[in-house]
Amino acid sequence: MSLLIIGSLAFDDIETPFGRSENTLGGSSTYIALSASYFTDPIRMVGVVGSDFEDGHFGLLHSKNIDTKGIKVVEEGKTFRWAGRYHYDMNTRDTLDTQLNVFASFDPHIPQQYRDSKFICLGNIDPELQIKVLDQITKPELVICDTMNFWIEGKPDELKKVLERVDIFIINDSEARLLSGEPNLVKTARIIRNMGPKTLIIKKGEHGALLFTDNGIFAAPAYPLESIFDPTGAGDTFAGGFIGHLARCGTINEAEMRKAVLYGSAMASFCVEQFGTDRINDLDLLEVEDRYQSFLDLSRIEP
Amino acid sequence: MSLLIIGSLAFDDIETPFGRSENTLGGSSTYIALSASYFTDPIRMVGVVGSDFEDGHFGLLHSKNIDTKGIKVVEEGKTFRWAGRYHYDMNTRDTLDTQLNVFASFDPHIPQQYRDSKFICLGNIDPELQIKVLDQITKPELVICDTMNFWIEGKPDELKKVLERVDIFIINDSEARLLSGEPNLVKTARIIRNMGPKTLIIKKGEHGALLFTDNGIFAAPAYPLESIFDPTGAGDTFAGGFIGHLARCGTINEAEMRKAVLYGSAMASFCVEQFGTDRINDLDLLEVEDRYQSFLDLSRIEP
Repeated sequence: MSLLIIGSLAFDDIETPFGRSENTLGGSSTYIALSASYFTDPIRMVGVVGSDFEDGHFGLLHSKNIDTKGIKVVEEGKTFRWAGRYHYDMNTRDTLDTQLNVFASFDPHIPQQYRDSKFICLGNIDPELQIKVLDQITKPELVICDTMNFWIEGKPDELKKVLERVDIFIINDSEARLLSGEPNLVKTARIIRNMGPKTLIIKKGEHGALLFTDNGIFAAPAYPLESIFDPTGAGDTFAGGFIGHLARCGTINEAEMRKAVLYGSAMASFCVEQFGTDRINDLDLLEVEDRYQSFLDLSRIEP
Repeated sequence: MSLLIIGSLAFDDIETPFGRSENTLGGSSTYIALSASYFTDPIRMVGVVGSDFEDGHFGLLHSKNIDTKGIKVVEEGKTFRWAGRYHYDMNTRDTLDTQLNVFASFDPHIPQQYRDSKFICLGNIDPELQIKVLDQITKPELVICDTMNFWIEGKPDELKKVLERVDIFIINDSEARLLSGEPNLVKTARIIRNMGPKTLIIKKGEHGALLFTDNGIFAAPAYPLESIFDPTGAGDTFAGGFIGHLARCGTINEAEMRKAVLYGSAMASFCVEQFGTDRINDLDLLEVEDRYQSFLDLSRIEP
């Protein structure tokens, strides 16, 4: 099933207790697309980069059969840059620097040949741009959306307009509480689902994820990893695995949605094992299935 | 299978964001015994109380077929008292007052007719007393142990002597990290299991529990509750449901151990719904099975 991904492409400087990595390829749509590429095609990316985005970066995306015709290159500009430092517990981080660069004037134009895309993944960008994207799609079958506290606080009305048109909303627990104004996650889920999305995924980082649908609640465990090297992009990688599996299935039902949460979790568990996209660049399908199986085993009663 | 439980009996003054409860029956062994009583008998309690422990309190225990002949009544003394206040998020609490009273000179004597007990549950008490208990048991088949940061910091050598004789150790995540000196839970589990217990359960509060055995890791989700009223005793109630199910089975294998974690989680999810032991005093078996089923459904792929 055709999958359109919109979001940021970036270069990150990352510092964790285990090391540093500079000029690392990042950005929400990069992680989503790389992760989804293990499950489905065609994958179409829409975004903007500067002249510092080199052939090698495009080459990596092309090697995963990702269509980059929707990525605009602004020759006189530089790609979005982010620098951050993770604390010892890896659950909190400080943003050291943000340079929007070409991303500041990003006005997403969906190429004609992308407009028939069936699955739409709106990565974490300005809700006004998310609406602009949706307005250009002929007949989307499934719209998945991510956001962050910056937009929840800064553009709540625009975000709510997006949510009315979203099928599946993916958000982390603190963002969900911020958006709903309610500390209890069960009540939070009810409030947010009333805003539009029939399906809600609340990510809890190292504690797994919760899927809320009309059928009830599904709790996915997190894989207890021996070492977490760099959490950057884990949430986007989760989203990529999740929508990638759904796009592969074509039809969406409760069971496939639950499996998709585990595939997303599996992909995220790889992501954190190395810096940036390093680990999710070079997976093979057998590894992905093995990790998915590990997630199944983790909550299986009959071992 | 005969189950011996040792631990505290207490009266608690509890303050949560939702209300106050005074002189509430509590203590680790009370919660463990009440919870286990839904699964197995005979249950034998060993502990100490003062003259303020009334017929009604004994009556409650007897109504659950709990044998209280091992509970010593010190007529000139008062029962252990604890007062605490929970913060808004219910995950942290302040101890406002602790009066050990008769518990200060507790020297556990196991009645002759209890010494053949097969399943032994060592609630959270001084490790020196836990050893004294084990020394009086003829031939235990399964020893389960709980502890807390107070003993990990105060009597680490004595605790390690206990752990050499323990089959299943139940501990929460922060205590596990404290005991192992290692932040990563997978590494933590390996370190603690090397101290003696072949099986380790790490409780993560609202995020569920992890079971570590020779067969691998099992992740139990927490039940996403709409309202958490009072977390007091949830960990002990978990332990009671866990060992209660195992004692009911008689034989211990990986599958029953995983089910036992879910039964423990189910019982703990009831416990927090009301003050003190109020909710686990009056359950019926159908409710317990229904809640267990909800836990199964929570991580089932095929809904």
